[in-house]
Amino acid sequence: MAIVVVDVALKPEILDPQGRAVQGALGRLGLHGVTDVRQGKQFVLTIDGEVTADKLDEIKKIAETLLSNPVIEDFTVEVKA
Amino acid sequence: MAIVVVDVALKPEILDPQGRAVQGALGRLGLHGVTDVRQGKQFVLTIDGEVTADKLDEIKKIAETLLSNPVIEDFTVEVKA
Repeated sequence: MAIVVVDVALKPEILDPQGRAVQGALGRLGLHGVTDVRQGKQFVLTIDGEVTADKLDEIKKIAETLLSNPVIEDFTVEVKA
Repeated sequence: MAIVVVDVALKPEILDPQGRAVQGALGRLGLHGVTDVRQGKQFVLTIDGEVTADKLDEIKKIAETLLSNPVIEDFTVEVKA
C-alpha cells in the first residue's frame, strides 16, 4: 500500500481571490507579515500495491487531465510511504 | 522570506463525497488499484521575515480557527524554505 499526494495550485500568474480573502482575514485576526496566500487543492490517493514507474506515469497523466486544469493550474505528485 | 504550507483534510472518520467521486472517476478512466481518495485544501502562506517559534504558534492557532474546522478537519503546518 502506498500513499500518493497530488497538490494542485493555481499558476502564479493567475489571480487567486480566495487566497486574497484569506490574506485579508489573517491581517484582521492579528497575524501580520503575510505577503501572499495561495489556496490550492490536495488529493491523497491510497494505492493498492507498489507504485511502479509506469503507475506513477499513469497517475501523473490523470493528475493533468482529471485533477487539474492545465490552462490555469500546476500540479505536483509525491509518493509517500 | 519563508513559505509555510498548511494542509487541511477531513478527519478519517468523516465521509468525503468529493474524494469518493474522484475515486469513481479514476476507475472509469483506467487507473485501477486506488483504494481511497481524500480531497483536502492547501494554503501556501508567504511570510515576511523569519518564522520564529512564536510566529509558528500564531500560524498554528490561525490554522485551527480560520483555515480549518476542528470539528471535522485535521491540519498540518510545515515550514518550507
